[in-house]
Amino acid sequence: MNRGEDLIHTVEVCFTPKLYPEILTKENFIVVLVDILRATTTICTAFENGVKKIIPVSSPDEARELKTQGFLVASEQDGKKLDFADFGNSAFSFTRDKIEGKTLVYCTTNGTRALEMAKDAKTIAMGAFINITALTKWLVRQNKNVVILCSGWKNKFCLEDSIFAGALTEALLANNGFTACCDSAEAALDLWSLAKDDLPGYIEKAAHRHRLKKLGLDEVIPYSFTPDLTGVVPVYNGKEILNYTMNE
Amino acid sequence: MNRGEDLIHTVEVCFTPKLYPEILTKENFIVVLVDILRATTTICTAFENGVKKIIPVSSPDEARELKTQGFLVASEQDGKKLDFADFGNSAFSFTRDKIEGKTLVYCTTNGTRALEMAKDAKTIAMGAFINITALTKWLVRQNKNVVILCSGWKNKFCLEDSIFAGALTEALLANNGFTACCDSAEAALDLWSLAKDDLPGYIEKAAHRHRLKKLGLDEVIPYSFTPDLTGVVPVYNGKEILNYTMNE
Repeated sequence: MNRGEDLIHTVEVCFTPKLYPEILTKENFIVVLVDILRATTTICTAFENGVKKIIPVSSPDEARELKTQGFLVASEQDGKKLDFADFGNSAFSFTRDKIEGKTLVYCTTNGTRALEMAKDAKTIAMGAFINITALTKWLVRQNKNVVILCSGWKNKFCLEDSIFAGALTEALLANNGFTACCDSAEAALDLWSLAKDDLPGYIEKAAHRHRLKKLGLDEVIPYSFTPDLTGVVPVYNGKEILNYTMNE
Repeated sequence: MNRGEDLIHTVEVCFTPKLYPEILTKENFIVVLVDILRATTTICTAFENGVKKIIPVSSPDEARELKTQGFLVASEQDGKKLDFADFGNSAFSFTRDKIEGKTLVYCTTNGTRALEMAKDAKTIAMGAFINITALTKWLVRQNKNVVILCSGWKNKFCLEDSIFAGALTEALLANNGFTACCDSAEAALDLWSLAKDDLPGYIEKAAHRHRLKKLGLDEVIPYSFTPDLTGVVPVYNGKEILNYTMNE
């Protein structure tokens, strides 16, 4: 028997970036960043539509500066596109004709905060319902522990990221080589078990959904909860996000 | 129609003390502190058995100092009683013959951290399954918003406190005067809906339960998940914990 095949890796779930410093997983791990509404869904969409790479930045000022240098820029605050930017963060605006082969500077409220928080991790993959199966297969091949980091909403717990964490945990556990290592992962699995048979109905009650509706931005919601629309696995290497499946 | 009767108060759930600074509820609120295994269950037990008041302290050193001054002292670290203390935090050790009419100094790992964190709240009530109905009735009478603060485990999310948060949210919502105001409350309600028909079975998977088993301290677990063993409502006023139902 090959000893390597017996190795069990852990799956840990972190409900908000603020809890990231408390994670139990200390070594040999990959972080999966989750911001279903909308950063990670949008980043997957951009790669599906041919973007070359994405440079995440942490402040609108930095995004504005890079715009003056000629970059395509996506920048939003509290769900609204900023005036100087080419895009907000609606997945639907990143069409192939606008972004294919281009480098995109991307600034978001929640996603960037989480990327900053987890920058000690060498590899941060972008997780969304639209790439969940491709991501799962890629993670299984990495032979590492997995920490699923939910972006949440202003550092608070949010339902949509948490149920995705449950869906991804379930998919990893189905591969035998993984075990859930904390109560958060158990809770995420349970929430996903309640949500999965009627995702649109379940997500109706998520507070963030109501915020998007108020802003008139809820057209991306059915799309954001549709599994496997793309095979991309965008990965952040500490500097830029590349589509790992295209680059390995 | 009496306008006062129409007022709706919010129920917010905070899964760990570390997330307390992010709560949405800003005014006119009561915090309910939850540490099912074991601080709040034990504090309720002590009042049921006649303790006069409890002084919470934040460090074993402080507890040791008060022991030399003649106080009865409960002090544990990571679930184990410290050598100088009269009690650890097993509910079963706080028997009437030992504590009736006495003042108790109480130091715990999780509970005290949460009390410190929420000290801006004027009133912090102690919540446990063993006093849930008495607590609910008392909260309904206060005419305030409610923030349920789970102690968690070393600042991480834990299942047993979260399902209690769901149980208490459900009980408050059944009174019409309350509404859940965040995704955490919705998630807690959902976890409770999965747990309530088989609480012992559900709690088997909680990581902390396994830690207690390892320490040989799991004899309090069935007790800690039994509803309504007492009518006490211990309340912290920023200095000491008193049984509010006995003092109003």
